[in-house]
Parts: sequence; structure tokens; C-alpha cells
Amino acid sequence: MVSSTKLLNRVLDDDRLLPAEPHTRQIARRLYDATCALPIVSPHGHCDAASLAEDQPFEDPAKELVTRDHYLLRMLYSQGVPMESLGVHPLGGGDAEDDGARIWRSFADHYHLFLGTPSKLWLDHTLSAVFGIDEPLRPESAAAVYEQMCARLGEEAFRPRTLFTQMRIEFLATTDHALDPLASHAALRQSGWRGRVVPTFRPDDVVDPDRPGFAANVAALGAATGCDTTTWKGYLEALRARRADFVAAGATASDHGHPSPLTVDLSTREAEGLFMRVLGPSRRAEDAELFRGLMLVQMAAMSMDDGLVLQLHAGAWRNHNPWLAQRFGPDMGADIPTPTGYVAALKPLLDRFGNEAGLTVVIYTLDESTYSRELAPLAGHYPALRLGPPWWFFDSPEGLRRFYRLVMETAGFANTVGFNDDARSLLTIPARHDAARRVNAGYLAELVAEHRLREDEAAVLAEELAYGLAARSFGVSP
Amino acid sequence: MVSSTKLLNRVLDDDRLLPAEPHTRQIARRLYDATCALPIVSPHGHCDAASLAEDQPFEDPAKELVTRDHYLLRMLYSQGVPMESLGVHPLGGGDAEDDGARIWRSFADHYHLFLGTPSKLWLDHTLSAVFGIDEPLRPESAAAVYEQMCARLGEEAFRPRTLFTQMRIEFLATTDHALDPLASHAALRQSGWRGRVVPTFRPDDVVDPDRPGFAANVAALGAATGCDTTTWKGYLEALRARRADFVAAGATASDHGHPSPLTVDLSTREAEGLFMRVLGPSRRAEDAELFRGLMLVQMAAMSMDDGLVLQLHAGAWRNHNPWLAQRFGPDMGADIPTPTGYVAALKPLLDRFGNEAGLTVVIYTLDESTYSRELAPLAGHYPALRLGPPWWFFDSPEGLRRFYRLVMETAGFANTVGFNDDARSLLTIPARHDAARRVNAGYLAELVAEHRLREDEAAVLAEELAYGLAARSFGVSP
Amino acid sequence: MVSSTKLLNRVLDDDRLLPAEPHTRQIARRLYDATCALPIVSPHGHCDAASLAEDQPFEDPAKELVTRDHYLLRMLYSQGVPMESLGVHPLGGGDAEDDGARIWRSFADHYHLFLGTPSKLWLDHTLSAVFGIDEPLRPESAAAVYEQMCARLGEEAFRPRTLFTQMRIEFLATTDHALDPLASHAALRQSGWRGRVVPTFRPDDVVDPDRPGFAANVAALGAATGCDTTTWKGYLEALRARRADFVAAGATASDHGHPSPLTVDLSTREAEGLFMRVLGPSRRAEDAELFRGLMLVQMAAMSMDDGLVLQLHAGAWRNHNPWLAQRFGPDMGADIPTPTGYVAALKPLLDRFGNEAGLTVVIYTLDESTYSRELAPLAGHYPALRLGPPWWFFDSPEGLRRFYRLVMETAGFANTVGFNDDARSLLTIPARHDAARRVNAGYLAELVAEHRLREDEAAVLAEELAYGLAARSFGVSP
Repeated sequence: MVSSTKLLNRVLDDDRLLPAEPHTRQIARRLYDATCALPIVSPHGHCDAASLAEDQPFEDPAKELVTRDHYLLRMLYSQGVPMESLGVHPLGGGDAEDDGARIWRSFADHYHLFLGTPSKLWLDHTLSAVFGIDEPLRPESAAAVYEQMCARLGEEAFRPRTLFTQMRIEFLATTDHALDPLASHAALRQSGWRGRVVPTFRPDDVVDPDRPGFAANVAALGAATGCDTTTWKGYLEALRARRADFVAAGATASDHGHPSPLTVDLSTREAEGLFMRVLGPSRRAEDAELFRGLMLVQMAAMSMDDGLVLQLHAGAWRNHNPWLAQRFGPDMGADIPTPTGYVAALKPLLDRFGNEAGLTVVIYTLDESTYSRELAPLAGHYPALRLGPPWWFFDSPEGLRRFYRLVMETAGFANTVGFNDDARSLLTIPARHDAARRVNAGYLAELVAEHRLREDEAAVLAEELAYGLAARSFGVSP
Repeated sequence: MVSSTKLLNRVLDDDRLLPAEPHTRQIARRLYDATCALPIVSPHGHCDAASLAEDQPFEDPAKELVTRDHYLLRMLYSQGVPMESLGVHPLGGGDAEDDGARIWRSFADHYHLFLGTPSKLWLDHTLSAVFGIDEPLRPESAAAVYEQMCARLGEEAFRPRTLFTQMRIEFLATTDHALDPLASHAALRQSGWRGRVVPTFRPDDVVDPDRPGFAANVAALGAATGCDTTTWKGYLEALRARRADFVAAGATASDHGHPSPLTVDLSTREAEGLFMRVLGPSRRAEDAELFRGLMLVQMAAMSMDDGLVLQLHAGAWRNHNPWLAQRFGPDMGADIPTPTGYVAALKPLLDRFGNEAGLTVVIYTLDESTYSRELAPLAGHYPALRLGPPWWFFDSPEGLRRFYRLVMETAGFANTVGFNDDARSLLTIPARHDAARRVNAGYLAELVAEHRLREDEAAVLAEELAYGLAARSFGVSP
Repeated sequence: MVSSTKLLNRVLDDDRLLPAEPHTRQIARRLYDATCALPIVSPHGHCDAASLAEDQPFEDPAKELVTRDHYLLRMLYSQGVPMESLGVHPLGGGDAEDDGARIWRSFADHYHLFLGTPSKLWLDHTLSAVFGIDEPLRPESAAAVYEQMCARLGEEAFRPRTLFTQMRIEFLATTDHALDPLASHAALRQSGWRGRVVPTFRPDDVVDPDRPGFAANVAALGAATGCDTTTWKGYLEALRARRADFVAAGATASDHGHPSPLTVDLSTREAEGLFMRVLGPSRRAEDAELFRGLMLVQMAAMSMDDGLVLQLHAGAWRNHNPWLAQRFGPDMGADIPTPTGYVAALKPLLDRFGNEAGLTVVIYTLDESTYSRELAPLAGHYPALRLGPPWWFFDSPEGLRRFYRLVMETAGFANTVGFNDDARSLLTIPARHDAARRVNAGYLAELVAEHRLREDEAAVLAEELAYGLAARSFGVSP
């Protein structure tokens, strides 16, 4: 890839995302320049450990950048572009476009739909700064751009590990199911390569009774760990065993994707009863939600022992569009945020562990109305609580600014955990961090320009937001 | 009226509503200048078709601009100004001020209450740019301003049709009840005048069981269409017939003002049962809400056939002040927004029609917390869904900016439908579009100044926001 | 104290909190300069009347500024600083740091946690402009700063009454329980000192059945007033008597801290039954909430007679952290906002008194999502309703700006009541008003720079926001 500091003018302006007011921009420029080349800590994302383990060339740039990115798929679909034309095969094996050049051309034909969106910022950055393509993507340039991408991906310098190093990625956490054998992570460790790629323990499939195949997953968990997961005690032992496997593989965090942030604290006897009900035929309507809440408290209890940071991503209505889900499966861009309440929901967990300075619970939200009303006051009080950065729809210039303006005056910077990229592809990680570092610099520069911070204080905070907070929160550095 | 581009300095600054930062203002200036004279598409408002059909001079400027505008009435009332002094007669015939000059003077005495509000922006624009009055409205100038307005309204150039043409209105949709005979619209078409004024099908009085006289309205619907509206089948037929009448009169949209956006999909048998209950004595507490939700899905089904755009204006608690409603009737400024949820409420409609690219459902909201949490993600996914512009309280400089900043990064521009003026009088239509075009230019200029858009891209989007999106969404142009 | 207009450069920049754009800053500068020396009206806060009655030197600056300020305690606690090290003694008499210098040093060691928070703005201002200390607070300077504070507090010029006068405080309302004998206020009046310090009637302990000791408090209310508070009639009489005592002591307002803004209007018979239930053993789960709502309507009824402004501070979940509350008691920074609805909740009160221009009900909120959706539309319609300024977490530069941008276009300036400082110490009152006046000037300057206001109009509004609205709303001046 090209140097991330040497950006090309035809596509990317060197001052992009910095405030327009000239004096403020100068301050922002200095803050950004001091942070743009810091190492990348990526504690939450959806990159593929296998690709780094195998270190083979990326297959096809259109599939890597378009077909796998539900941010792009949903916008194109909303304007009538068929999923199939973007390379998405119907479940059960219907036809879809398989030619990368054609997929790319369909995408380029509709690239104007992304004007003003973060997706376009990221992709322009990736094309220009990672691929070194000095030409805006348009229908007319689509073929040439595609060819250049393909050529680059064939080069030795574009192998995943080389990119990883060149991108200055210091720490990359993948997201892995509880039943994952972590083979790619084992291969990575055994390969002797020095890049730090670790798994994240994401046990939704064995703690959420609403997931398809829940009972089978719990049984498989028993088989994988040699624990008797037909009992509550054995089930907890199995989870502890798997967490230990993840810790051994370098994991520093767990992650939980729940419909709501409800937490539930029960006596062992009550917990046993609920566990039996969710596994069996006598499950009541509310049991799945209660069980998820119970398991968040159990996970926090285990974190007290093994030190994993507990991340909670709550509030998405998954697969809101049943026709689409049935036709193409999940993760097609049809997940919709819902109103989410934290103050009552988190109380059982906080009542038990909120005062523990040794525990770190990181909350992400899809309901921005809770930033100032609930999350900043909670994180600004409870020692165990930290706020994750803007997530999903809100990982954007405006979203980041709203987060800072709504959160920081109450929570303070120290109760946040820096940036997460949530990227779908290794290729787009630098774009996301670069955008965030620019927006951070702009936000801090505005505080400096209004004399709400001194510039030396802002410089410390810029480094914290770009690197320090994430590194310390996720155990990358002490 | 005076030219909308030649604005008078004593009241209206030429740079009003453009960003303060000089470089950004220059960009905004260019974007605004290229859009300020574009034709006006007004797809949703409350102007009077009769006044255009008759083309008689406006009666009294105080009654036209103050007495009929609930935005003004509510603010004056909140500060103790009696409704009667503003020309509003109590129901049942109590006294009220009838002298336009005195109503205008009462208004001018309290004009300071509107400092910083969009109402003042619009009225200043109307006085200056439409009436050509080069004098700020103050208590001292009230009489002179009123005299000038009266004089102008007596001129030939201030007849409604002449104004319509001079204002460059290309398309004006009125809002009409389902039982409206559309006589004024028929007269307009027969008159040979070339202005495009069309009705909008607003069936609240025949689909909302909570409306006064609902059963009688349904019976009248039967009488008007020759359908048997005592049966579910005949009722649907009658609605189809009336929609056809509206389509024949040029309508391109229906509009629905519901307390909530609930949608309900029922089997024919269930629907029949609910229909019978809401018309009869066995209505249950929840039936009215269910029936409104059912009818939204039915309206969408009919839109699949006749092509009418379905607009939903949900979330107002109408007549929150019972004393005022009893004394003066509805639309006195006592309607209050309520928290509104879309993700579950719209699902039955979206499950059935959300994937239909041929259908257009436009959602307006009074709950800004849903912009980024619900509406942008929904519109950014479902082919059938589009977002209406900021409505009512939020049609303001700050309201528009919030909308753009909260919506566009996720939904994209193409999933919105441009501007609606919702004006109460033909006289104020240019003011509302001018304000929106200025705010649009400022918003886009900020994106350009931060290099989030190129200026040529912003120019295309400025034209889209001012004209193209509304024209295409509402079938004005292909 | 040093002059509030002569600010010292090493800590406080003279342009702090003013907009960065140079032209806008010049306008803001003029608006601020014309308002910075206006008298302070402080209609709601938690200062101590006794300290002004006794006029003794402040005891210890660390305890005054840190130990008593739950804004500071919560942030320090959230990052693992023990309450005890900040001078907070466990209930029941555990150990805590009592040495002011050491408390101050602990605070200074963690002062970086407050970067970007209003607490730091206020404290920097207090140290610099009130104490005249020309040195930033750092761990290294902590001892010297503490010594200087102590020295100053020993000076005659730092006695509370002298400060009060020098700070140009024209009106200071304290917050007092219904059972408070108001002895300090009586002493103040008898002392002949001319400073206007008045109580506020805060009857939570005798109207909220969930408060500890509620029944005993009601009995004590009977004893204090000679009324039979075992009956509904006698209870109301007792409240009227106490309100009269407060009015006699200069009070112009009551204040109500409720979990929700629910209001309830009942017949006398129903009210009697509810009163008996909340006092006795047959209380139902919902009775406490109903009774609080009932009492808000009763308080409004009494305000119709005695003219007290009714202030409602609703929406905090008090003592969310049970471990902390048990160990240290209330007001330790563990109160968390909750989602709050006003449209239905206030209706019973508004149905009865909303149209009374002679009544003033001031609403404060901890749920910013209600600013534009509920509160501005309600206040922009009902004659009896006014909006309080941003409260608690939202009394901050960003919080004030959000309030203005979300509220003013709909409610208008006249339906708000100016600024409240809510200060914990007399020493920090100027800091809070100065910050607000700067943010106000910046907000108004932006409207002027965008030609949404003329500068002369903005100057009037700046004075209104700094002084006039508060003075008139709370009966300080006619």
C-alpha cells in the first residue's frame, strides 16, 4: 500500500474532515499530523483470521469490498439494485453475478448514492491510499479501477500480512463464535509471524435461546469441552473452559450481541430452573430474554476471574425484512436499531459488579438518545463501566461529533475506550481510523479554538483517542 | 410580487441563513444562486384550491397571514394574547376582532416573540419579497405595513393565479378530505388555466374511527360512490372509487394523519370483523388504533394499483388542550408531538410491501430521536420507503440542519424526497422554499469546505434537494 | 474577589467559549461585554443560607469545593478514586481524609479527568477570577494553590456577604425542606443586611410517600403548623400554612424533585382515599406515584392563590448504586437520568391550569430528547408553562447550545426563564453565570452572523437571557 500520510490529491484532499474555519483547521492539522501515523489498535471488527493465517492474495476486490459489506448492500438495495447483481447468491443456490468486474461496474454505476456517506469516504480512501489509484470512481472509470485493484492484489506487497504490517496494525481482534476451534488463530501463532491477531469470545450462539440451533450448540459446547452441558453447573464450566481457550489464544475481550441490554441476576436455583426451561419444551415467552440477561451477569462474573473485557452490542432488530432474510440469509443490511434503555436494564449487573474497578464493561449503542441521558451519566459514575465509540450507523463524521459533544462533558475522556473500526475487510481498516483521527482532531481543535482546552492538553487527548485509550482498555499495553 | 432574487436590504440580508465562515459562505452562495430560481414543487400543503379557482383578490392580509396560521396563534396565545384579538371567533358565535388592521396591530405588538423563529423568517420574507415592503414590522410601522399590504392585494398582479405563476410554482398539491367533491379542482381544470394544482387524497375522516362523525362519513362515502359501505368489500370499493376520482383530478399522492404509525395486516375475515366493530356499538378500546393501522396497509395495497404515493404524517396528539378545543375548535396550535416508534409499527406494512420498488411510502415524523435510530436505517434499506423533510415544528433552519446531519450519512440523499412547504397561504410559499434552499446550500457548502463532497457534486445535490427529488418522488416529472 | 471582567491570562483566556469564527466572535464579544457585569439572579441552587446568616469565613476550600460537589465526586469515583480520600465519611463513622490539603492534592492529581468538562471550566474560573490565583491547577501546583485559597478565605473580603455583594448577586434562592424552620433566613432578615436571600419551598419529604420517614414527616408537619395532618383537609391546610411561612420569608417559588412528571387530578373523595392509603398499611404499589402526581396538581392550585412559581425537576433515578448509597448516603453522584414523557404526564395539571396566564410552571428535564418533541411545543402553547434552562448534566457549553438550538425556534425566548446556576457553593456562582453568558453570546452571535437576528435584537435577548427572564419569571423585578 502507499504511505498513509502521502495522500493523492485527485480523490482525497489533504484537509478533508478538518474544520472549515482556518484558524481551527490549523490547530486540527497539527493534532492530526501528530496522530495520523500512530499504530492502529483494532479491538473489535469482523476481519478474517484465516486470510492472515494463510496469507494468500485477496481473491477478488469487488467481492472483498462490495459483496461482503452490508453497509453498501443495503443502500444499493434500497434504490432497487438487485442483491444478485452485487454477487449475493440466494440461499439454496440461485443465480448471482460472479464476475467481479461486473459486480464492480454495478457498484460504480450507483456510487453517487453514497455521496455524503461514510462508506464513500472509506472507499475513496481505500482506493487512493491503499491501492494508490489516482482516479475518482465513476461508471466510466470502473473498469480501469477494477483492473488496477486486481493488479495490486496480485503483488507481493498486498499479501495480508504485509498489508497488516504496513498499515501499522499493532493489535487486531477478530470476532469468533464460542464453538470456533480457533484453528486460524492457532496457525497464526504457530507460524512465527509477529503480528498480534487475537480472537474475541462471542458466545451468542450458546447463550441466546433465540438463535437457531441453540440447544444443539449447547450440546456441541459440551462435546467440545468435555463438560456436561445438560446441567447449569456443567454449562458454566464449559463456558469457562472455552473462555480459557480464548484467553490462551490471546483474547482480551468477550463480545455480546443482544437485542436488549437487559441484565438479570438470579440465585443458582432460579438460574438452574431457567436454564432447564430454555433448553427444553417448557420455555415461556419471556425466558429467552431473561436468559440472555442472566448470561450477561454470568459473563461479568467470569470476567472478574479471567480479566476479559465484556463488550455489549445491544439494540439491533436483526433481520427486520423476513423476505430478504429468507432469500439471502442474515447480514444483508436489514438490521434496524430500536429504542434502548440502559438505566434499569444494566442495574442488576451494576448492582453486583458496578463498583469493581478491576472489571471493564464496554457499552455500545444504536440509540443516540441515550448518549447524554443514560450512558454518559452511568459511565461517569460506575468504576466498571466504559463507553464504546459510535457504532455501525454512527461511525461517521457527524456520528462521531455527536458522540463527543453529547458524551464527553459528562463522562470525560477517560471513561471511553477510543476507536473501533468494525471493518469488514482488512483493506478498509486504515480508512476508518484515518477518518476518525481527522474527526477527533477537528473536535479537539474546536475546543482549543474556544479555549476550552489548551493545545497541549488537546494533543494528549488526540493521542489517547487514536491509540492510548484503546490500547489500555483492551489490554494491548499496560 | 417582487422578484425573488432581488431582495431588499432593510429587512432581508442577501446572505441570510448562509454559514458565517467566509469561505464556506462563498461556496453556499454559489450553490444557492444556482437553485434559488428553480421552479417550486409543493407536494404537501394546506393552500386553498378555491382561491386559485376563483382567482379573486385575497380578502384581508391579517386574516390570511395571522388568523389562519396556527404557528403564529399558538405562540401569541402562550404569552397571553387572546385568540379573539387575533380574529379567531369562539365556536357558537362569540365575539372576536374582525378588523384586519387591529388584528395586524395586535400581531405587530407581539412580533418580538418570534425573534429567532422560522415564522419570523417567513413573514419577513413575505412582507419584503412578495409584498415589496421595505420596512421592518414593528408596533410603530404596523399601520403603514398593513395599508401597503392591502393596497398590493388590490392590484391585478396579486391575484392568486398571477402570483402562482410569478412564484414559479410548477406543482401545487392541496390536502383534501375523502368526501371532498373536488369542485374547485374541477373548476381549475375547466378554466383552461395552465397552473398545475392537484388534490391529495386524505381519507382520515373515513378511515379513523376516532374522528367525529366517522360512521356518518362512511355512510356518506357510500352515497357519494354508489358503493355499499356497510360491508368491508363495499367500503374498500368506495375508497378505490374515490382514489380514482382523485387520480383523475391529477392527484399523485395520498396523505394520512394518524396518531401513531402503527400498521396492521389482517386476513379478509379478520378485517371484516374489525370493520363491523368500529362501525357498530361493539367497538373495543383498541379497535380504532387497529383499524387505522389496517387501513394504512390497505392504502398501500391500493397504491400498488393506482400509483399514489402514500404519505404518513404520524405522531401528533391533536387538541391536547380541551378547553381551547371546546372554545375555538381544532388547529389552534394545541397539537403536541409524542414519542413515536417506527421499527415495529411499520413492520406489517413493510413485510408485505417493503420490497416493492414500485411503491413509494413517505414517512414524516415529529420525533427527531427517530431520525438516526429508526428512519434513516429503515429508508436506507427498504426499496419502498422514503423520508419526508422536517415537518411542522422542525421546518426551520436548525430543524433542517439536524435532519440532514442525522439522516443523510445513513439514508443517503436518494432516499429522501426534497422539500415540502406545508404552507397555510399561497403568499408564504416562496418564503419557505427560499429558507430551505438557503439552509440546503449552507449544509452542502459545509460538506464541500470539509472536502466531504466536491463542489460539482454538491451542486447536483442542491438541485436535487430544491427540485429534482420532489419532482420525481411525487410524479411531477419522470 | 477579583473583578469578574479582569480575567487572568494564564488560566482563563478572555475569549473562552466564544465562537472561533472571527467575525462571529466579534459580535459575541460585544454581546458578552454588555451582559457580563449584569447582576446575578440565582433562583435555584443549593447554597447554604446559614453561611450568609453567620457570615463567618469559609472553613476549608477543599471541602467547600470538592467534598460537597457531587459533580466532582462522581467523576473521580468512576476512575477508582476512593470517596474517603476526597473527604467523604462513610455513614456510621468510618475513616476518611480530613486534611484539606491532602483532599485537594488527591483532586489535583486527577484534575486531568475533567478536561473538556464544565466542572473544569467552573473551577478554573473560580480559582482565577474569584481567588485571583494566576496558576493552572496541577499536581505540582496543588499545595501552592491550596495555600493561596486558604489565605484568601481568611481575608475579610472573602466573608460570604462581602463576596455576595461583590459578585453582584441581586437575588439568591436556597432550596429548603417543607419542615425547615427557616431560622437562617429569619436571622438574615433580622440582621439588617440588604442582600436578598430567600428560601424555596421544596416539600418532597412531606409529599413523596417513597421518601424515608414520610409518615413521620407528615406528622411533624402537623405539629409544626398546628394542623391535623391525619386528614386530607388538615394536610392541605398545613401545606398552605408552610407555604405562607415561606412567602413571608421572601420565597417566590416552590420546587419539586419527582421521579417522573406525572400529574394526577382527583376528586376530593378520591384524594382523601389515596392520602389515607399512602399514610397507612394498605398502600398499593402505584399509590406513591399517584400521590406525587396528585400533589403537583394541589401545589399548582395553591400557587394560583399564593403566587409561588412551581418548579418541577423530574426524571432522575436517585441512588442508582445501592452499595454506594448504603455506604455514603445520597448525593454522591449516583443519580441517573431516565427517559421521561411530559405530554401525557402533565396533561391533568394542564387541563386544569394550563390556560392560566397568572400561573407559572417551570419544567426542567434530564431527557434532552424531549426538548424539541415535547417541551418546546408545550411551552410554545400553554400560557402557564415555561421551560427551565439546561439542568445538571446539561448545564455545559454543549448542553446550553443544544437547548437553544432545539428549543428556541419553537418555544421562543419568552417562554423560557433565563439561567439557573444550581451551584453547590457561593464561590462557584460567578463561574456558572459567566460561562452561560458567554455561551449565550456565542449562540446569539451565530444567529446575527447568519442574519437570523439583527445585532440590536440579539443585544436585547442577551440581556434577557442573562438577567431579565430570570428576574421577571421569579418575581425579582416586575
